[in-house]
Amino acid sequence: MYSFCMCVVSVVTFAQQALWGGQDIISPEIHPDHTVTFRLLAPKAIKVQVIGDFLPTQPTETPYGTFDLPGVAELTEGEGGLWSYTTPEPLASELYSYSFIVDGLKINDPNNVYQIRDVASVTNVFIIGGGRADLYQVSDVPHGTVARRWYNSPTLGKNRRLTIYTPPGYETSGKSYPVFYLLHGMGGDEEAWIALGRTAQILDNLIAQGKAKPMIVVMTNGNVYQQAAPGEAAAGMYKPTMQLPNTMEGSMEESFLDVVKFIDANYRTVKKKSGRAIAGLSMGGFHSLHISKQYPDLFDYVGLFSAAIMPGEEVQSPIYDHMEQKLKTQFDKKPKLYWIAIGKTDFLYQANVDYRKLLDEKGYPYTYYENEDGHIWKNWRIYLTEFVPMLFK
Amino acid sequence: MYSFCMCVVSVVTFAQQALWGGQDIISPEIHPDHTVTFRLLAPKAIKVQVIGDFLPTQPTETPYGTFDLPGVAELTEGEGGLWSYTTPEPLASELYSYSFIVDGLKINDPNNVYQIRDVASVTNVFIIGGGRADLYQVSDVPHGTVARRWYNSPTLGKNRRLTIYTPPGYETSGKSYPVFYLLHGMGGDEEAWIALGRTAQILDNLIAQGKAKPMIVVMTNGNVYQQAAPGEAAAGMYKPTMQLPNTMEGSMEESFLDVVKFIDANYRTVKKKSGRAIAGLSMGGFHSLHISKQYPDLFDYVGLFSAAIMPGEEVQSPIYDHMEQKLKTQFDKKPKLYWIAIGKTDFLYQANVDYRKLLDEKGYPYTYYENEDGHIWKNWRIYLTEFVPMLFK
Repeated sequence: MYSFCMCVVSVVTFAQQALWGGQDIISPEIHPDHTVTFRLLAPKAIKVQVIGDFLPTQPTETPYGTFDLPGVAELTEGEGGLWSYTTPEPLASELYSYSFIVDGLKINDPNNVYQIRDVASVTNVFIIGGGRADLYQVSDVPHGTVARRWYNSPTLGKNRRLTIYTPPGYETSGKSYPVFYLLHGMGGDEEAWIALGRTAQILDNLIAQGKAKPMIVVMTNGNVYQQAAPGEAAAGMYKPTMQLPNTMEGSMEESFLDVVKFIDANYRTVKKKSGRAIAGLSMGGFHSLHISKQYPDLFDYVGLFSAAIMPGEEVQSPIYDHMEQKLKTQFDKKPKLYWIAIGKTDFLYQANVDYRKLLDEKGYPYTYYENEDGHIWKNWRIYLTEFVPMLFK
Repeated sequence: MYSFCMCVVSVVTFAQQALWGGQDIISPEIHPDHTVTFRLLAPKAIKVQVIGDFLPTQPTETPYGTFDLPGVAELTEGEGGLWSYTTPEPLASELYSYSFIVDGLKINDPNNVYQIRDVASVTNVFIIGGGRADLYQVSDVPHGTVARRWYNSPTLGKNRRLTIYTPPGYETSGKSYPVFYLLHGMGGDEEAWIALGRTAQILDNLIAQGKAKPMIVVMTNGNVYQQAAPGEAAAGMYKPTMQLPNTMEGSMEESFLDVVKFIDANYRTVKKKSGRAIAGLSMGGFHSLHISKQYPDLFDYVGLFSAAIMPGEEVQSPIYDHMEQKLKTQFDKKPKLYWIAIGKTDFLYQANVDYRKLLDEKGYPYTYYENEDGHIWKNWRIYLTEFVPMLFK
């Protein structure tokens, strides 16, 4: 009767290319030996570079000290303005981020739709398997459910958004599950751990391998001035920025009971200390430290990932008063795991040395994990994969 | 004791800028009068353009016919290589997509983190309020929950992913809710409606305004060869492409009962015809047409949004057999709403004229909605905002 013919495919494909400048090339191409080729069609460009954390870092002098900035490699121009670069060596298993720099302008790879936002930057990503990063891939295993849900915080006087992972089988098992509260760092939000942290993939994989107990993971928004991640609240699509002064003055910690009450009221949870864990990266490690000592009966498992340790002395909040006394109370109650992890080149390394010295002096037991590199997502994903198998056992 | 001083902010902000080439400018800037300024810092560029659907389209001759391609405007270079363009007129209320073209290379706006993928293209977006697009914004109203969840499809022999919107209050009300199945088009997946379609925002807003009944919205993946959207299944992070031949041969329709059974078994639903709606755009309209006639007792509300109407005659499936007889059965059972919507310049316009002629000849009642423009997301968002208020009343 009426014909919906194959020519529609051609038309739509053509339109797609024509409308949006699509390029019919593959980038990045991950070869079987785990070398990677990056490609960009840019006939008018004079210089094309790739910048990313798969390249050796370059120690660079800055007004704030010496930083290991990501390395840069030059692409070579080939026929028809097709630039390319292939890594000289296979890459280790990891989730990598990169961008192109075309004549000085940083751009995303138009042939790679996989991008993740980190604060105000959006970069392309790719994953090399065959090692730990297999945990970051979506595997053919049972998958948990990831929900974005809103709750009311009476303490902060606003409705707020969080991201919740419920494990495979949660909806139908009728069982109660332990809860792991997982907190982001400065500039992050309730999207950080699920995106750059690959939390859902890591949990799915560790649970499928029998290495982690099925658990609920609650990823909150630690910025008290926000209702939700940028673009996800009535504040609209503004440009994200770092806003430390609003987020480390006690109100995040004071409002955290609102989250725990909401979760316990709305999910089948193990409603006791042995069924709750809390961990966070950087500012989220700071929050985890203070929340766990402020409410010493709530969490049996505490993780400080590259944690910021103390507020500035100018910060006044009852949360930060009587630190030593509260720590004593917390450790008198013998948490099952107090885990501190940091990379050797982290700018917070010394602060963590000092904090461990305090714990050592008091005889408070903790487990310490130290590895290479600094204040980067690569480490936070590693810490998550190390921490989760120790929970609720 | 240990000081976590404010200098950390400076350092991290600096690192942020240095590492990833952040630009400290605002783009796009939406002015109070709804003109918009686009900016790009590109000192070495010779020519910078912006391409987007906020500009008047340009009728363009192509091998496939004349297409209305998006307009292009030139940015002007200012001090320090800061290029800018301000729209000469205020923009109408809408969600717009755009990219920059720098010396012929299409790039994303590095100062705008809001991007949406459409098949293989990622473009920046912004919203102009003050009209219908207020429905596309996150408002200060109660928010539903959006979950990505996996289900088993025995018909297709695989686990598959879907996106589910449950309305505000669903979790605690104890009530049963009607279900609206909302299907994407070619190249789309279970992320299409929630991202470009702004389904969660539209439902939140229409429900808060009392214009729509609280309902569950189920957004499936209509590509039977996929378990999930690109990057969300074990197939990994491949480059998305159009794959029509796999998705309009009957198996999507045959497997749809798996979805309905899963939803009815796992959610508090109104488990009858008057509690179910189905609609889709383009290929999803085609699927909605065939699913609703194949299972004439399932759906009281059917929406065809810019629908592809018929399979090619070479396609063999029992789904497409006995079309007229099945339509007769469907309409004998008097669906409460059979809604057909299309834009005047849609390349499927004539196919829809022909299909309506068939319905008219048989005396089958339907409601018709015709507007400007063609086969674009602007229209599909409009159709969603028009269709939803008519459901379940």
